[in-house]
Amino acid sequence: MSVVVQKYGGTSVGTTERILNCARRIIATQDAGHSVVAVVSAMSGVTDNLIKMSREVCAQPAEREMDVLLSTGEQTTIALTAMAINGLGRKAVSLTGAQAGIVTDNFHTKAKIANITPDQIHQYLEDGYIVIVAGFQGETKDGTITTLGRGGSDLTAIAIASAIGAEVCQIYTDVDGVYTCDPRIVKNARKIPEISYDEMLEMASSGSKVMQSRSVEFAKKFGVVFEVRSSFNTNPGTIVKEENAGMENVVIRGVSVERNQAKVTIIQVPDKPGTAARIFNALAETNIIIDMIVQNVSVSGTTDISFTLGKDELPKVERALAPVVKEIGALDMIEQDGIAKLSVVGIGMRSHSGVAAKLFECLSAGGINIQMISTSEIKIAVILDENIVNHAANLAHEAFGLSVAPGA
Amino acid sequence: MSVVVQKYGGTSVGTTERILNCARRIIATQDAGHSVVAVVSAMSGVTDNLIKMSREVCAQPAEREMDVLLSTGEQTTIALTAMAINGLGRKAVSLTGAQAGIVTDNFHTKAKIANITPDQIHQYLEDGYIVIVAGFQGETKDGTITTLGRGGSDLTAIAIASAIGAEVCQIYTDVDGVYTCDPRIVKNARKIPEISYDEMLEMASSGSKVMQSRSVEFAKKFGVVFEVRSSFNTNPGTIVKEENAGMENVVIRGVSVERNQAKVTIIQVPDKPGTAARIFNALAETNIIIDMIVQNVSVSGTTDISFTLGKDELPKVERALAPVVKEIGALDMIEQDGIAKLSVVGIGMRSHSGVAAKLFECLSAGGINIQMISTSEIKIAVILDENIVNHAANLAHEAFGLSVAPGA
Repeated sequence: MSVVVQKYGGTSVGTTERILNCARRIIATQDAGHSVVAVVSAMSGVTDNLIKMSREVCAQPAEREMDVLLSTGEQTTIALTAMAINGLGRKAVSLTGAQAGIVTDNFHTKAKIANITPDQIHQYLEDGYIVIVAGFQGETKDGTITTLGRGGSDLTAIAIASAIGAEVCQIYTDVDGVYTCDPRIVKNARKIPEISYDEMLEMASSGSKVMQSRSVEFAKKFGVVFEVRSSFNTNPGTIVKEENAGMENVVIRGVSVERNQAKVTIIQVPDKPGTAARIFNALAETNIIIDMIVQNVSVSGTTDISFTLGKDELPKVERALAPVVKEIGALDMIEQDGIAKLSVVGIGMRSHSGVAAKLFECLSAGGINIQMISTSEIKIAVILDENIVNHAANLAHEAFGLSVAPGA
Repeated sequence: MSVVVQKYGGTSVGTTERILNCARRIIATQDAGHSVVAVVSAMSGVTDNLIKMSREVCAQPAEREMDVLLSTGEQTTIALTAMAINGLGRKAVSLTGAQAGIVTDNFHTKAKIANITPDQIHQYLEDGYIVIVAGFQGETKDGTITTLGRGGSDLTAIAIASAIGAEVCQIYTDVDGVYTCDPRIVKNARKIPEISYDEMLEMASSGSKVMQSRSVEFAKKFGVVFEVRSSFNTNPGTIVKEENAGMENVVIRGVSVERNQAKVTIIQVPDKPGTAARIFNALAETNIIIDMIVQNVSVSGTTDISFTLGKDELPKVERALAPVVKEIGALDMIEQDGIAKLSVVGIGMRSHSGVAAKLFECLSAGGINIQMISTSEIKIAVILDENIVNHAANLAHEAFGLSVAPGA
């Protein structure tokens, strides 16, 4: 019998009524002739409340204890979900991450899965049970509770699907799938039926936060095909898988927009070895996450170095870089917020030329000024003024014909 | 270094502020030169809320899943307590019941402790940690989560104290200790400094619900001396231990009152073998817990059988016994509520005569009618009208001189 792994996020199990809805969906999957393993998150709000309590007893809680605390959230959901399924007349059993055989390293609050020994899952499936597994958690080989960090439940589902050789892995969330652009920005955005891992990764890192990148990377590494779909309707979602020949026919898969960006430019940096390293080491030491970096050709022995980052990080940048700017002998540091990033993503870009030209042209025709450009093999990203980025997204969506299904 | 086991109940850890108070008390114990293992319950209200959610998803939740659900309550408290201690500058670590090595049988929601392998507790104590253990829970040898039922956290504390050979076991609760009578009933009731296991058991079964009987029985079986005391002040509590010679000098240790009782009398039961068994089997099958049973001498071939029980159980009794009364050929069944039980308890009773006479005399002098009498080796219990039981308790307390400390 084929095994289906389903993952239900915090919004999908946010109330007991919604847990019952998930239970009915899980049962429907069993009725369709599948064995089902369901991975569930903490009910939405629960984790925040636990974090709030932890702050009340301690300014900087130990990460080991944070994991003991937060893992109760998923444990509550597995029990309630198993009960809900029982109440609807089916055999179900709950397993914590540890019981499901998920062994991690000992980096608390952001542990990596080391291996999975899904003996109990196999046994219960053989005995006809629906198995409910706590997402986001595991244990070290010494039996200490760990959690997997942001997006951890997705990772649990994909890792279990890989370990038990599931036919299908479905990630249920509060959106219908991955769209050609955010439908709140582009009215005629279209759900993408299939997308490659790499495209999904670029979309994720460009603001389409359907899933954390690490889960997609894990799925790519182990070749786990998964589907992102909504737990609030029965529409088919978006299937994420290895690229195939047909996929390349579509030049651009989607457009994504990331707001609340900021740009920092260090002016007249003496053009000698080690200065860039000095700057970005100082940022890394302060745990500031940088997005795009652009350095122009040196003119008269100095160069300008610019980078972008989340607007909220700006105050940290000032503290970290002010002494460095002085030290390396640069002229000044200029900060600017109110900007946004627009990216067009598609593996077809590799075999089609003129994508960048087409993007720049359509933005130019719309009177939109491009402040920075950065490209990867399958993505072109531009930095624009934040208040015209929605207009720009519509122009790009239209220029690449994304509102029409390929082959339609 | 001597090891102290402390147990903090749900009220004592009911808020994050109270958890911080417990943390300070634990640290003070360490400062006094002890190694400390603290067993904690779920924060008050948490368990009720979990039960409420379980009812929302399923009318009759599976007991296995109930244990997975409820055990999250204590797991939350251990993490918060360890964090609180960390925040106050000490090393602390939390352990779930399973991690603490508590192995139980597989009777979910009321599991019995089979054995304890406290390797992790020993290791962490040796490394200078304060160890926080989740009360009320364990796991089967197959690694399934179990809970120990009502009073389970007390049991955890006493069992751990026994397993690690702790010098002291302190049960922190919301009362100061065991009193000669409930101070709300008898104004000059006095805290009892020392009480024997057997007396404590009789007091517990007679309405002084400081602790569940099973924890006291466990302590008696393994000779664990423990102290019941308040987490809201630093007053010494009541030490519960094996009786010693000095204890017998006190004839009566205390008076306890149990309200909300009911009496059932089956009239003119044919006096032949097997009828009593038939009656009480029918009650046992319906899980009705009976307290006192009194059968008078047979007169003219029939006898009256009376028993008492909690008032709330009466409707179940009607359903269970109506057919039996008919079957055995008894005349009728009479139910009466509005009664209460008053007990005087003391191991000194064994070596002192006249205790019963003194009790009956003082009640009689107060114009109080006794409806039923039942005695054990160290207890005399009488059933009285509920609205005069407080008066009766004061009379008995006075008659046995309980407001004055022995030897004072």
